[in-house]
Amino acid sequence: MREQGKRSETARLEAFSDGIFAIALTILVLELRLPPLEAVTPGDLIGAVLDLWPSYFAFALSFATILIMWMNHHARMGLIERIDGLLMFANGFVLFMVVALVFPTALVGEYLTGPAGKGAVFTYAMFVLATSGAWNVFMLAMKPERGLLRPGAPGSLVATTRRRVAGGFMVYAVAAALVNAYLGLGLITAMWGFWGTVAYRALNEQRAWSTEA
Amino acid sequence: MREQGKRSETARLEAFSDGIFAIALTILVLELRLPPLEAVTPGDLIGAVLDLWPSYFAFALSFATILIMWMNHHARMGLIERIDGLLMFANGFVLFMVVALVFPTALVGEYLTGPAGKGAVFTYAMFVLATSGAWNVFMLAMKPERGLLRPGAPGSLVATTRRRVAGGFMVYAVAAALVNAYLGLGLITAMWGFWGTVAYRALNEQRAWSTEA
Amino acid sequence: MREQGKRSETARLEAFSDGIFAIALTILVLELRLPPLEAVTPGDLIGAVLDLWPSYFAFALSFATILIMWMNHHARMGLIERIDGLLMFANGFVLFMVVALVFPTALVGEYLTGPAGKGAVFTYAMFVLATSGAWNVFMLAMKPERGLLRPGAPGSLVATTRRRVAGGFMVYAVAAALVNAYLGLGLITAMWGFWGTVAYRALNEQRAWSTEA
Amino acid sequence: MREQGKRSETARLEAFSDGIFAIALTILVLELRLPPLEAVTPGDLIGAVLDLWPSYFAFALSFATILIMWMNHHARMGLIERIDGLLMFANGFVLFMVVALVFPTALVGEYLTGPAGKGAVFTYAMFVLATSGAWNVFMLAMKPERGLLRPGAPGSLVATTRRRVAGGFMVYAVAAALVNAYLGLGLITAMWGFWGTVAYRALNEQRAWSTEA
Repeated sequence: MREQGKRSETARLEAFSDGIFAIALTILVLELRLPPLEAVTPGDLIGAVLDLWPSYFAFALSFATILIMWMNHHARMGLIERIDGLLMFANGFVLFMVVALVFPTALVGEYLTGPAGKGAVFTYAMFVLATSGAWNVFMLAMKPERGLLRPGAPGSLVATTRRRVAGGFMVYAVAAALVNAYLGLGLITAMWGFWGTVAYRALNEQRAWSTEA
Repeated sequence: MREQGKRSETARLEAFSDGIFAIALTILVLELRLPPLEAVTPGDLIGAVLDLWPSYFAFALSFATILIMWMNHHARMGLIERIDGLLMFANGFVLFMVVALVFPTALVGEYLTGPAGKGAVFTYAMFVLATSGAWNVFMLAMKPERGLLRPGAPGSLVATTRRRVAGGFMVYAVAAALVNAYLGLGLITAMWGFWGTVAYRALNEQRAWSTEA
Repeated sequence: MREQGKRSETARLEAFSDGIFAIALTILVLELRLPPLEAVTPGDLIGAVLDLWPSYFAFALSFATILIMWMNHHARMGLIERIDGLLMFANGFVLFMVVALVFPTALVGEYLTGPAGKGAVFTYAMFVLATSGAWNVFMLAMKPERGLLRPGAPGSLVATTRRRVAGGFMVYAVAAALVNAYLGLGLITAMWGFWGTVAYRALNEQRAWSTEA
Repeated sequence: MREQGKRSETARLEAFSDGIFAIALTILVLELRLPPLEAVTPGDLIGAVLDLWPSYFAFALSFATILIMWMNHHARMGLIERIDGLLMFANGFVLFMVVALVFPTALVGEYLTGPAGKGAVFTYAMFVLATSGAWNVFMLAMKPERGLLRPGAPGSLVATTRRRVAGGFMVYAVAAALVNAYLGLGLITAMWGFWGTVAYRALNEQRAWSTEA
């Protein structure tokens, strides 16, 4: 009874979080807007659509980032049996940053190719850095000695993930510090490639994703 | 059978409400918008982003407010076995105010630092006051003598929560009446800190959140 | 097995529909926007906020309308065991109109008090009329002789609901035809009061809502 | 245990995907906006509302498209027991295109009747083509020899669907290549009619939708 109550609390928090991930993913598209055009021909319109490429890139990057964070969130929640105040706070902080990411995505989409490109990428990187900070708090809350993990949850997997998340924070700090906009964004994209590969491999090995197995 | 039917009705209402909390939380970010900039340098853009701080503050305040209301909603629904007309109405009123909060959040974000700051905070406080009113109706509907609580639900916990919710209404009324914008907003923020602390402690003591335990 | 498969299909369609009801409800708030103000004092801002009353009214009306439609949808789905093509189409049509209602809500909010008020209310009434049309198709698809109802579902309740939904269509047609904007909107609001009262009473008698009981 | 863990992973991915389908469907309505009107009479307003017909058409088309894709997604997921990296990637790609479809929908709504109509329809067709591409990857990931299907899943049904999805890709490529805007859009609409009919029949025969039966 008590056992089941705990599990269903975790399940409810996960369902609520899933909802926020899904909504944040989706409303990214609302930032894809054409500037008002006048007296357009088909060619003008297609040209204007192609000129939006930084918006598409930022949309795709943030979409992939949030999707992969969702996968990681799910894998990590699968190891948790009980929620305490710190974990609830860390989860709320993660969700806050996931939602907030919509804003710098729009910024990069609008300013990347102009003279303020570096400023837009810097802002994006700062938001990613804060997101990474939230994940670091989340991983601290999951430390085995805090007693929230399920019996049998592999402590070494948690430790590996904690180290990777801490390493990610360093990379994002570097990305924010880079002078060149494209270089900074490239580093963030590469980092997404890394997380995606980790998730992809884990899926094929039926490890991290299917924590039940 | 009958028992299970009742529980699943409550679960469905809670799932629907959870969805609305999650969506309201997330669309808050759509109000974070840069004013149109022309001829920007990276420094100009970062400056404009930093100038948005009242928007970030309002976003974070409303995000935290709705997240904590969700936690409280969940804890309160956990004590309920049966839904009647008044409770359904009160729940709808709470959801309406949760959704409506998106509007004064945008207002505070846009006008806080200008000459109309007091007007924006007054409006925000009036919406928070109405939200508190909805919660007061909700708690009245939960009075033990109305017969909606689950067998074994602690009547004293319900009474304590009802008193706190009534006290909150007074505090928000004061916040609306304050002459200074920052003072009013500070009081509302402090009140959020109070509710957050209550929820945090309850989590660590495994009380209010995990009502099954 | 077969039995359970059917039930879970119905449950999935209902969960999907619930999600759309919840999102449509919530994004109504995005239409509450202040016109750009310049050189405002607190009094000016509060005045501008109060001048938005038609928007609040339209928001509240549509919020209540969708919430009550959700309750009715849930009660009606509770009687259904199997989904066929017509019911799926009718459900899709209902969801389409629920989502589309966001548009005339914004229209009424913006134009109600001006010279085009009648045009805005006429548009709103036409959308409500189409929504009612969708519900009429839904109720036709639920006719007992079509064989989608659960064993033991009360045929007389379905027939009563079908007659009420057909009657509602007439009332909305009249509302669209009325010359006066406020009168037309008042009739729609009164109709919502009727549906709300029906739902309220049903809840207190534990009938329509808790179909399991 | 292991079995159940796999099924619940699939269920969770499906629930997450359902959420994104539902949200994308709903936010389509946010693109229905009246251009600013001045000095309007009721007739002017109704005229302006009627002039929005390309927006309504695009809204209805994309709504129906996403709704039918949801039905197909559900039927296809019902055949799957295990998720690997490729299927997860394909699913993410499908969801990305579903969300992205909101953008060309707005474009068609705004430019269809003007001189840039062909450009808008071309863009819409390119997005539909990419969506179809995502579904083709999805169907490749579902190939029986890849071992993700449930025991007893009908391989011939999967093969038929894979051929239809591949054929759809050709049709959308033709639609993008057509010189006339209305012809291209008509072809896409006809294709939706085809998918809708397939889904409608399957429902009446209780085949593809109710995969449990």
